[in-house]
Amino acid sequence: MIVKADRVIVGDGKSVLEGAAVCVQDGRIAAVGTPQELRSQFPLEDVIEFPGASLLPGLIDMHVHIGYFGERDDASEFEKNSDLAALFAVDSMKKTLEAGVTTVRDVSSARGIAQTLRRAEQKGLAVIPRIITCGQGICMTGGHGWTMTGAVCECDGEWEIRKAIRRQLRDGADWIKVLTSEAYRGQELTQPELDAAVDECHRMGCKVAVHAGYIPSVEMAIKAGFDTIEHGTYLTVEQAHEMREKGIAWTPTIVAFSYIRDVMRNAAGEQESGLDLGYIGEAADIYERNFKALYDTGVTVVTGTDQVLGGAPVSPVARECQYMVDYGITPLEAIACATRNCAEVLGMGDELGQVRENYLADLIAVDGDPSKDILALKNVRAVILKGELL
Amino acid sequence: MIVKADRVIVGDGKSVLEGAAVCVQDGRIAAVGTPQELRSQFPLEDVIEFPGASLLPGLIDMHVHIGYFGERDDASEFEKNSDLAALFAVDSMKKTLEAGVTTVRDVSSARGIAQTLRRAEQKGLAVIPRIITCGQGICMTGGHGWTMTGAVCECDGEWEIRKAIRRQLRDGADWIKVLTSEAYRGQELTQPELDAAVDECHRMGCKVAVHAGYIPSVEMAIKAGFDTIEHGTYLTVEQAHEMREKGIAWTPTIVAFSYIRDVMRNAAGEQESGLDLGYIGEAADIYERNFKALYDTGVTVVTGTDQVLGGAPVSPVARECQYMVDYGITPLEAIACATRNCAEVLGMGDELGQVRENYLADLIAVDGDPSKDILALKNVRAVILKGELL
Amino acid sequence: MIVKADRVIVGDGKSVLEGAAVCVQDGRIAAVGTPQELRSQFPLEDVIEFPGASLLPGLIDMHVHIGYFGERDDASEFEKNSDLAALFAVDSMKKTLEAGVTTVRDVSSARGIAQTLRRAEQKGLAVIPRIITCGQGICMTGGHGWTMTGAVCECDGEWEIRKAIRRQLRDGADWIKVLTSEAYRGQELTQPELDAAVDECHRMGCKVAVHAGYIPSVEMAIKAGFDTIEHGTYLTVEQAHEMREKGIAWTPTIVAFSYIRDVMRNAAGEQESGLDLGYIGEAADIYERNFKALYDTGVTVVTGTDQVLGGAPVSPVARECQYMVDYGITPLEAIACATRNCAEVLGMGDELGQVRENYLADLIAVDGDPSKDILALKNVRAVILKGELL
Amino acid sequence: MIVKADRVIVGDGKSVLEGAAVCVQDGRIAAVGTPQELRSQFPLEDVIEFPGASLLPGLIDMHVHIGYFGERDDASEFEKNSDLAALFAVDSMKKTLEAGVTTVRDVSSARGIAQTLRRAEQKGLAVIPRIITCGQGICMTGGHGWTMTGAVCECDGEWEIRKAIRRQLRDGADWIKVLTSEAYRGQELTQPELDAAVDECHRMGCKVAVHAGYIPSVEMAIKAGFDTIEHGTYLTVEQAHEMREKGIAWTPTIVAFSYIRDVMRNAAGEQESGLDLGYIGEAADIYERNFKALYDTGVTVVTGTDQVLGGAPVSPVARECQYMVDYGITPLEAIACATRNCAEVLGMGDELGQVRENYLADLIAVDGDPSKDILALKNVRAVILKGELL
Repeated sequence: MIVKADRVIVGDGKSVLEGAAVCVQDGRIAAVGTPQELRSQFPLEDVIEFPGASLLPGLIDMHVHIGYFGERDDASEFEKNSDLAALFAVDSMKKTLEAGVTTVRDVSSARGIAQTLRRAEQKGLAVIPRIITCGQGICMTGGHGWTMTGAVCECDGEWEIRKAIRRQLRDGADWIKVLTSEAYRGQELTQPELDAAVDECHRMGCKVAVHAGYIPSVEMAIKAGFDTIEHGTYLTVEQAHEMREKGIAWTPTIVAFSYIRDVMRNAAGEQESGLDLGYIGEAADIYERNFKALYDTGVTVVTGTDQVLGGAPVSPVARECQYMVDYGITPLEAIACATRNCAEVLGMGDELGQVRENYLADLIAVDGDPSKDILALKNVRAVILKGELL
Repeated sequence: MIVKADRVIVGDGKSVLEGAAVCVQDGRIAAVGTPQELRSQFPLEDVIEFPGASLLPGLIDMHVHIGYFGERDDASEFEKNSDLAALFAVDSMKKTLEAGVTTVRDVSSARGIAQTLRRAEQKGLAVIPRIITCGQGICMTGGHGWTMTGAVCECDGEWEIRKAIRRQLRDGADWIKVLTSEAYRGQELTQPELDAAVDECHRMGCKVAVHAGYIPSVEMAIKAGFDTIEHGTYLTVEQAHEMREKGIAWTPTIVAFSYIRDVMRNAAGEQESGLDLGYIGEAADIYERNFKALYDTGVTVVTGTDQVLGGAPVSPVARECQYMVDYGITPLEAIACATRNCAEVLGMGDELGQVRENYLADLIAVDGDPSKDILALKNVRAVILKGELL
Repeated sequence: MIVKADRVIVGDGKSVLEGAAVCVQDGRIAAVGTPQELRSQFPLEDVIEFPGASLLPGLIDMHVHIGYFGERDDASEFEKNSDLAALFAVDSMKKTLEAGVTTVRDVSSARGIAQTLRRAEQKGLAVIPRIITCGQGICMTGGHGWTMTGAVCECDGEWEIRKAIRRQLRDGADWIKVLTSEAYRGQELTQPELDAAVDECHRMGCKVAVHAGYIPSVEMAIKAGFDTIEHGTYLTVEQAHEMREKGIAWTPTIVAFSYIRDVMRNAAGEQESGLDLGYIGEAADIYERNFKALYDTGVTVVTGTDQVLGGAPVSPVARECQYMVDYGITPLEAIACATRNCAEVLGMGDELGQVRENYLADLIAVDGDPSKDILALKNVRAVILKGELL
Repeated sequence: MIVKADRVIVGDGKSVLEGAAVCVQDGRIAAVGTPQELRSQFPLEDVIEFPGASLLPGLIDMHVHIGYFGERDDASEFEKNSDLAALFAVDSMKKTLEAGVTTVRDVSSARGIAQTLRRAEQKGLAVIPRIITCGQGICMTGGHGWTMTGAVCECDGEWEIRKAIRRQLRDGADWIKVLTSEAYRGQELTQPELDAAVDECHRMGCKVAVHAGYIPSVEMAIKAGFDTIEHGTYLTVEQAHEMREKGIAWTPTIVAFSYIRDVMRNAAGEQESGLDLGYIGEAADIYERNFKALYDTGVTVVTGTDQVLGGAPVSPVARECQYMVDYGITPLEAIACATRNCAEVLGMGDELGQVRENYLADLIAVDGDPSKDILALKNVRAVILKGELL
């Protein structure tokens, strides 16, 4: 299949190939070139055209909670009916794909639903994005996330944490997720517990993400050597430098805070001009203020959306990119955060996240030119997953 | 929305409106007429054209087992993982809809999955056919179906049967299903048990279907007064007359037997010309021999497909119609069996199963003219469910 | 395989073929004749000789409780360890076979152990007699046998009994066993309950045995139409005539009572000359007094041993025959009770229980001539099961 | 009982007593000498002759999993029916004995089946080899063996491991088994966990075996001080020296890998000359290449067969000896690995594993002379267990 659009955005943060097309064979990108080159090189392939559109790598969302229904108004119905919860999970993955997101990292979900979705996909029972899963998240007793029944397990002490990690890996997790700070409590797990978590993961050959927001928690997380820091809301420039040096990536999840802030504002009504949005409002502001300086340290930044409210948009990676551009980086840089950077952090940088020969053929066509106007990322016209046009 | 095709097949067993179009509004058929009439009557409606196609009522499958995985090679995986089972169920309903089947009667399924699918549909989490469900089927201890774990409950004696019926109704069933004969044991439930089942259903205002195949079982079922007899493989002309008089409909499920016979033949290989297919082969032959004479008694015949094998086609109502035509009735009669007749048996004859003004807008467009060549039913080009084009 | 001994006892109550041999092929008796005849007819078969021995059909025990450990001193250990119970069951079946008993009817056992043993035999995991099983026995709440945990289920009323029967058949039972009288209570189940039991069994195409001892219980059992009456201790000549007319067979189980009486006598010591043995002593005496007159009515008599005490001999069919001879019938008649009669009652009279061409090759060789001295039945020298020499 | 054959092989790796006989009394070897000496010393003993045969100690299998059915095609049937599993276990032990193996070390099994078999043997319900059992094995969560449901328990951290060990000992285990590496994950338990396991066992006075295959795992196992290393596939000569010095024995289980390799080759068909057998093929080759050099270090080598596939030979100790001879040691040395060495490792070197006065009378007679041709070990003609001829 030869796919033509107005241009190809490679996903490397700089290259835009005007007039280029892509040839897809056996689930991989066989070649990138001019339509004429591809036609002569692959004379038998079908041609699909998306005039007015741009081709770019499928987007990646590094922070989703598959099937999480806990903040929906009808949560109790889902709690009592696991079949309904499974139907919700597959529907949300289907909508994620429709939003142009072809790979997600699930940073804690319940009942092995991520693994089950993958299994269903293998059996031809669902068309969904590639899933990298952390299985259940791990927090201290009463720590952040403990209320996400089934999606997070409470552990205390080095050995309970190691056991929980071993159990996730046994049950098919690819990564591990640790949660260690929340709004009103400060740091949660002790340094020895964090160290044990990282040690167990790394000796078992897997990577580990950590939820940490406040400065001391981020500090401990950096010291322990996690692979990605999630949120890192109060991250300092100095810490960002340390992260870059230690190869720790950052998933700011700007849209998570902004969306909640907007919901709160709407709920309060427009007349409440002096509304105090508390921690959420502060967090959203801090991202606006600090993002560019942190980005400029050279720390690896990746997109994650963390939408958990009922009614929230499904996997708004495009909107996360839009915030990044609003806060100072270029559209091409933002797209690289949502594609190449994610793939590299996932350890798949040599075959995912860019439009290059031999890379996996996860592609999207969007109307317009997102390298100029990042809003174009929202106009998804077609999705190609594993070489198949959906 | 004004939908145009080459013709409209009404579904009443006789009417074909060449050149007619249909106007759909608010989930109902607002009008059937010439395109000109509709255009002038509804000047603001969008127009969709399917040149070369015929419009007819969405097909109805009166015999499905939603989410039944027991005969799949990987059944044990589904048994251990109810999430996977739920994903299988929703996927099969999605494929049912793609086959042009817009309503199904579920004649026993497990864990309330039919009700859950309906609930998911209401919440916007799944696009699936209308579902009429019997909940769990009811058989005697060790009776036909008892191995369908969870999908059939074993009851003995009048009161256990009444209680089981009440439980199904409480849990959201619309109909009741009773199973009472299998290949090698003859009749199973006693006459008093069958009588109690029918009495309990009718006094609760619901209809009741019965699985019965052999002559004595069918005899007992007619005597008890069930609303539909499923399979009725060895049904006699005399019994069919009785059924017509008592208003009992017949769901022959020809394709269920024929498909299994074909699988057995393929498994045995073509060289085995003298292959003994036992009961299944005999049943398939009997349908071929007897169908026309039974149909001619005037008994109400409806389509049901009962595909339970792993790898079987999903809801092949078109194929069931094809068998009926092969065995002697006209294509229009077969289409009526799959549309109007089903709707009438379901008690929805005044709003479902025909292309008429004010009827529910469940429509399909198929390439070709199935009123001349029934095979055209397989060429589904578009499905409109509750007035929405899918 | 040609098997030679001094004679063949056919098992029909009269025929002894001096000097005859038997040819066994493919699990069946290919021919019975002189060694010379067989040698010329089957020149390639191996020959096995048992000089000084008699060949006769494998013995049949119509009354065993497979794996019943309830009267062992160490019963509580077995109750807590079902693996140990399974090992006990298979060991007792192995010893049954060594005693020359090639078929048993299990008249109630727990946990489906009889079916499991059969399954193990099919898988090559055990060499044991043919097993015909009743699954769990059925008694009224608190009725005879209710203490045999798991081996007997308590039912009351027509529908509970029908349900219990259906469950046994579903779970692989071949016969049904009902228990309805015990020493100190008189009759237990009511006539309608007994009638329902027989009706349910016969309409499902299976036979049904009943434990009944006292005159009124036997009377009710005959009226209900059971297929065999177990024990029938106080059976009258008039009742035996009725049984013969209705085709009901009798399993006296003489050795069950005699063995318990002997154990009681030994326990009491020899000095207690005036020992009152109560019901057991009376029962043992009654058999001695009445057996011949009852046999002479022509009622079909079959051997059953019912040994349930810890330390009891395993399946002493030879001893049961010895009692019958002691009480007045001929050795050949007693052997027919243990072979042909059982096979006929089991509905296998045309292929089991006699040494005849085409019959199943279940044979035993015993030292001496049991047609003259019934004690010779105890000298089992070889057992052939399904054509295989063990 | 005086047992005569052509020779006695003592089991000490060197002595063959041509023309010697053995006198057995009260379960022990009363004397070894010429038939004339024994006859005059024990004039009243029965004499049994096995002309053409050799007498040697009963073989010992140091690596079996009693009753393990997990790799059988019909495993799910056994999972659902523990009685069937018990029948399988006793049958496999019976066949083990028939193969000349009179003692087994069970290195993890489920439900206390090993203890139950021993109990059944004490009660006269089974004739089986002497059993030394480890009870359930111990691995980390998700570690090697965790899929052997019930046969292996998952523990993490020093204290869970100590508790698991205490529980096994409480429930009748004689040894403890730890599992710590698998093909694709490298080392599993941490050094502190391994150290705790060894410490707990040794302070409780029991020995402990460890499953370890790769060099780093073996290194950790040697450091911890286990008593036997199972498999040790990639064992180096340097490590073998260390083991000899620390008194750690080696159970190579050559036949386990070779058998699986052969099954894979057969499944692939002979034409696939370039078949990649992966880890299994590599392991089998490594044994062939390294065995002799490792043996020559003086490390104690013992026979273990670890046959877990459905359809695998039962306890092929003879075949394990054959591989050892093929790979360079003498038949007498291989026989010592299968007798004396095992007994010494089991701590029973002064009464088991050799044909010597006062030793336990576990003996086998095999046709031919295995001291010259190791293949003769397969010709088991008679087995004497605890002084009883089977």
